[in-house]
Amino acid sequence: MSSLVLKGKPVANSIKKITEEMIAADDLKPTLAVIIVGHDPASEYYVENIAKQGEKLGIAVILKKFESIDLAGLIHEIKQCNENDNISAIMIQKPLPKNIDEKVINSIISPDKDVDGLNPLNAGNLYLGQECFIPCTAESVLEIIKFYGIQTQSKHIVVVGRSNVIGKPIANLFLHKSPTGDATVTVCHSKTKNIENYTKQADILVTAVGRPNMIKKEMIKENCVIIDAGINEISKENDKNTFVGDVDYQDCLDKCEAITPVPGGVGSVTTTVLLHHVVRSAKKIKKKE
Amino acid sequence: MSSLVLKGKPVANSIKKITEEMIAADDLKPTLAVIIVGHDPASEYYVENIAKQGEKLGIAVILKKFESIDLAGLIHEIKQCNENDNISAIMIQKPLPKNIDEKVINSIISPDKDVDGLNPLNAGNLYLGQECFIPCTAESVLEIIKFYGIQTQSKHIVVVGRSNVIGKPIANLFLHKSPTGDATVTVCHSKTKNIENYTKQADILVTAVGRPNMIKKEMIKENCVIIDAGINEISKENDKNTFVGDVDYQDCLDKCEAITPVPGGVGSVTTTVLLHHVVRSAKKIKKKE
Repeated sequence: MSSLVLKGKPVANSIKKITEEMIAADDLKPTLAVIIVGHDPASEYYVENIAKQGEKLGIAVILKKFESIDLAGLIHEIKQCNENDNISAIMIQKPLPKNIDEKVINSIISPDKDVDGLNPLNAGNLYLGQECFIPCTAESVLEIIKFYGIQTQSKHIVVVGRSNVIGKPIANLFLHKSPTGDATVTVCHSKTKNIENYTKQADILVTAVGRPNMIKKEMIKENCVIIDAGINEISKENDKNTFVGDVDYQDCLDKCEAITPVPGGVGSVTTTVLLHHVVRSAKKIKKKE
Repeated sequence: MSSLVLKGKPVANSIKKITEEMIAADDLKPTLAVIIVGHDPASEYYVENIAKQGEKLGIAVILKKFESIDLAGLIHEIKQCNENDNISAIMIQKPLPKNIDEKVINSIISPDKDVDGLNPLNAGNLYLGQECFIPCTAESVLEIIKFYGIQTQSKHIVVVGRSNVIGKPIANLFLHKSPTGDATVTVCHSKTKNIENYTKQADILVTAVGRPNMIKKEMIKENCVIIDAGINEISKENDKNTFVGDVDYQDCLDKCEAITPVPGGVGSVTTTVLLHHVVRSAKKIKKKE
């Protein structure tokens, strides 16, 4: 019996459609400001992709690049974006140089424009089950679950990873009284002993830990659903870089009921979720005018 | 072999000592404003107790009682307290009448004076592992764990209950990289099926669900630690009201390694934690002056 492959593309397409309809319905001019400090090729590639996808949907992406900047300067830039009604949303590309305290930066971005869901107020509203911007990767996991009609109520969901941008938010979201919630949730991480004791119990296993192929067939339950939010770059023998997930896809494929591929799974939904957030923000600003 | 009874009183005394030292060191005049709307005997008794304990420590408690008030009026009262430097901290006694939206109220209290940790910004900082006011009952659980030197790292902690004031915050706190964190955490609740499958796995079991005596001996692991944050009022045969926890204390006593009694456990620490928060807030305001 072959497993269902939970591809991200149809999920992204469905969100794109809704996003385009929102733009058309209110004649919005959504604009995302992306602040980049220094050089990081992976990061620049990611932002280029956002700009390209944004253009297709009718979302402007303004790049604000700085060779270097101090904390005060960066705060000033962000505050200008906060106050500018022509900017719907703000994204600060990570990693930031060491002289910049990310916590301070996250708390400066206006919660209303914080489409990455990094401001503590968005984090608090997420965790209290109130309206907010959810970090894009965590929301992508929910979107995949919704799109493929995966039931979460009363299921045991095991989340591997406790980061502020994926593990923690997704674990909290699964606890809410909601159509993608009401699950019993276990969170494992680097300090968990005998992690397979937990992963083996999972009806739904969500990984976001950054360890290539760590989850093997012996560690999962027959007919579980696997959502792999890990994206790890590995060098193969021919020196060509390849991306793999936290789950050994080939090893687990026949044992699970459904699995997201890497690449082509969670990662192919996140940019669309981000752009959808930009449009939500633009709509909110327009309503206030 | 008899189990260790994790009494709350010595924990509270230790926090009181630190609190008194803080007041003396900076010659603080900590003042808590408690806003009460309507009549609720249990709630009034609780507030009287706070005032009495506060007086002993040198903390003034100002009661602001309203027979009834509308949302706008209550918001106005809270804002006045936010702006008044003579008020160190604000507590809004629950339950509030139905015409008042608690979410709105929680978001109005200045995060700096929100000693109950209800403002979404405090919730967000808690969940991100940043400085904040932790809801008092959740913090009391941590204080008990610290006081009795209970190790949490790599332990499996099962939390029964997913409320915003106990279950969710305590679950998130146990995940942090901290001396009372680094645990593998499972959260169960009303939608969990076969809850004993989870409670039986717990090295540390934390209950906060409001169901009298629901946890029986058969549902726990030999030599586990039980922290019972449930306080349930039951009527005994002689019509005298008695309080019991979520755990059947007598039934579980000999099987576990340690257990908090009800009453006399978690509940006897919370008021002291609240008053400690008031002093923290007073100190912060004084430093700003």
